[in-house]
Amino acid sequence: MTQEQIRDLRAIVGEEDCFDDKAHLSAYCYDATRERKYPECVVFPHNEEEVSKIVKYCNDYKIPIVPRGAGSGFTGGALAVGGGVVLALEKHMNQILEIDMENMVARVQPGVVNMQLQKAVEAVGLFYPPDPASEHYSTLGGNVSENAGGMRAAKYGITKDFVMALRAVLPNGDIIRAGKKTIKDVAGYNIAGILIASEGTLGVITEITLKLLSKPKYSKSAMGVFPSIKSAMNAVYKTMASGVTPVAMEFLDNLTIKAVEEKFHKGLPKEAGAILITEVDANLEEEITRQITKIQEKFYENGANDFIIAKNEEESVKLWFARKNASPSISIYGSKKLNEDITVPRSKLPELLERIAEVSKKYNVLIPCFGHTGDGNVHTNVMVDGTKEEEVKRGYEAIEEIFKITIELGGTLSGEHGIGLSKAPFMKLAFTQEEMDLFRAIKKAFDPNNILNPGKMAL
Amino acid sequence: MTQEQIRDLRAIVGEEDCFDDKAHLSAYCYDATRERKYPECVVFPHNEEEVSKIVKYCNDYKIPIVPRGAGSGFTGGALAVGGGVVLALEKHMNQILEIDMENMVARVQPGVVNMQLQKAVEAVGLFYPPDPASEHYSTLGGNVSENAGGMRAAKYGITKDFVMALRAVLPNGDIIRAGKKTIKDVAGYNIAGILIASEGTLGVITEITLKLLSKPKYSKSAMGVFPSIKSAMNAVYKTMASGVTPVAMEFLDNLTIKAVEEKFHKGLPKEAGAILITEVDANLEEEITRQITKIQEKFYENGANDFIIAKNEEESVKLWFARKNASPSISIYGSKKLNEDITVPRSKLPELLERIAEVSKKYNVLIPCFGHTGDGNVHTNVMVDGTKEEEVKRGYEAIEEIFKITIELGGTLSGEHGIGLSKAPFMKLAFTQEEMDLFRAIKKAFDPNNILNPGKMAL
Repeated sequence: MTQEQIRDLRAIVGEEDCFDDKAHLSAYCYDATRERKYPECVVFPHNEEEVSKIVKYCNDYKIPIVPRGAGSGFTGGALAVGGGVVLALEKHMNQILEIDMENMVARVQPGVVNMQLQKAVEAVGLFYPPDPASEHYSTLGGNVSENAGGMRAAKYGITKDFVMALRAVLPNGDIIRAGKKTIKDVAGYNIAGILIASEGTLGVITEITLKLLSKPKYSKSAMGVFPSIKSAMNAVYKTMASGVTPVAMEFLDNLTIKAVEEKFHKGLPKEAGAILITEVDANLEEEITRQITKIQEKFYENGANDFIIAKNEEESVKLWFARKNASPSISIYGSKKLNEDITVPRSKLPELLERIAEVSKKYNVLIPCFGHTGDGNVHTNVMVDGTKEEEVKRGYEAIEEIFKITIELGGTLSGEHGIGLSKAPFMKLAFTQEEMDLFRAIKKAFDPNNILNPGKMAL
Repeated sequence: MTQEQIRDLRAIVGEEDCFDDKAHLSAYCYDATRERKYPECVVFPHNEEEVSKIVKYCNDYKIPIVPRGAGSGFTGGALAVGGGVVLALEKHMNQILEIDMENMVARVQPGVVNMQLQKAVEAVGLFYPPDPASEHYSTLGGNVSENAGGMRAAKYGITKDFVMALRAVLPNGDIIRAGKKTIKDVAGYNIAGILIASEGTLGVITEITLKLLSKPKYSKSAMGVFPSIKSAMNAVYKTMASGVTPVAMEFLDNLTIKAVEEKFHKGLPKEAGAILITEVDANLEEEITRQITKIQEKFYENGANDFIIAKNEEESVKLWFARKNASPSISIYGSKKLNEDITVPRSKLPELLERIAEVSKKYNVLIPCFGHTGDGNVHTNVMVDGTKEEEVKRGYEAIEEIFKITIELGGTLSGEHGIGLSKAPFMKLAFTQEEMDLFRAIKKAFDPNNILNPGKMAL
């Protein structure tokens, strides 16, 4: 970019919101992949109109533009691979515009942090279920762009199930609205549907209208201890098919349990093959009891050694501690974590985990697994010593084999994290040439000059 | 079309499944709009491969092709306005391919009738909630293409909320898959999302994977009698915002109540301003009681004169009789019914109905209203004498004014029926030029030759 171009952008947003100094470029060059791709300019728009002007300008001059929320994505979605402008939405466009109690709907700007919305709506008795692990810092714009999931997806679904309407700026600067504050709306193409999960490649989301639920009065957590992964995985899908829908059904394998225990000494069953931690909610205590009883029955039927019900909030927090600290704990197994979020139909979980164990042996790498088994979503972590090139290579080979197994079992490369840069090389495992052609045709229809988040999703 | 072209299509599907005789063209020239548009050929494919060959052939020769299920749509979506081929999917592609109990998923061909699936899954304790009024004859392919709703949408959502994956044939003949048998899948663009509600203009759906729920054990129906429309509409949104989510919350206005009573003599409250009929479901009887009690409280708080709880299945059927027979009954008010399915945010229902009453006076036409108020979806029926040109004209003017009011209140032209031909002239009321441009760009990306269901949705 030229200095003149940077001056032009500065004229749109003002002196204090357009930068090309080293400090700013460094601060906006990374995401949770820990890769670094330097933009040439960072711009902080104040409103949709400014977004439109900036995008139009970049389109006219063919400057790449990368929309960015918190930069907490795991697949490089917010990395400026082609240089150009990072459009940072978290600084000024971070307001909850409306919590409409009567229609049970929230209207927010893209830079609102997920937890900020959760807290605001819970304060008035409402409930926004999507809860990605990044809920304390990831933004709703990012959540929509990546179609974030979370632990509560087993019962409540994922971000796309809550998006009622969007406002967005198209690559040519046009401002569009898609969807309504209504449950039903079938007029025109489902533009909101295609913008969700498009990883910032089709439009810049400037406003989000989200469905809210009423917050169930009661909840209860429990933990099942299993002798083997297989028994735990069988228990997951048998429970889900039994007429109970837990809010969450999370698992930790033996390696993960050991890692958490080693780090935090919480008295976890270190010899267990796996543990399942689950939560149910309802508006009646009797309904809580019915669900917990059913889960207990299914867990024992499928080989559980133990079933612990949290008696109060404190015990509940204790049960969940292991799951919440799984991700940081497993670093004991290697300095570099190649983490993926594959997902299979629930009934395929036992086979998936068995085959991952084989991959672990074959490539001689440890692969601690944990995750959202209630919806078939497993976080697989291939742990390697980042300083050993050969070991890293083996790790990536293991990942590729895991992807192949996942596809073979009717699963998907990504349940939550998206494709971005990290998974782009594997798109050919999951999609045919015809399907990739269609993705490219859609990209071209929205963004003929390929200015919006170029280089992502293998487009 | 030339005779040679018809011979070529016959070669693909066989002698008995390709026709251009008058009887077949007449049988496939209409839908529920009662308009007639004659195709030049009717083809009954046996499988996806044949669909692909037919579509590719039509694309090569620029022959319009209109996918068709039961032809029960209200907006002309299945009418062959440009002649060409009607691709009738109900004859051979009507099999339930799989009911996967473990993952709670059904895989069906597009020609399966909605109720056929409902019955099949309920027989094994599962549940497919979308229940359009046409459930006894409309096909799931049509339901997906129009994103059909129904009475249970208030609690369970609409067709799009249950589609996990699709297979489809693109206008160039390419066969694609979109989505997975998993709750979470964020790899690639959400193609299933944009095919849903695209009214057969982007691809021919050849297989549908649908999410199933477990069937709640108990349900109960009740009816509230209100002195005025306004009191009933207030009760609707106050109830929905109170922490109870009824499966259905249906209403009939005074004109509709009178019409049903005149025709069937069921002892309905003819002087009531409106009635609300509601249903709740749950897995525990206590939860049924909790919900019904809450609804009763909210109904009385908002002015209900009476609240009748069905004591058994027989009484429940009796309560629902009025709603199920609303549509045919109102024909007493005029030989021609201009029916629309506008939808507004629930809190706007009182204002919407008040303003429809004003429109009725202004244009001197009766407008009986009923519908799915739980999700803000109102069926407005402008009744006119079809033989009186001036009256029909007034009717259409009233409709246009109702559309304008709906948009003004943040609502949509169509909650369920789609745009097709009937609502195409009104798209400009709901969408900006920029939004229409985007629709056209997407249409072009999928269908550059505009062969697939051309002339629909004002594209």
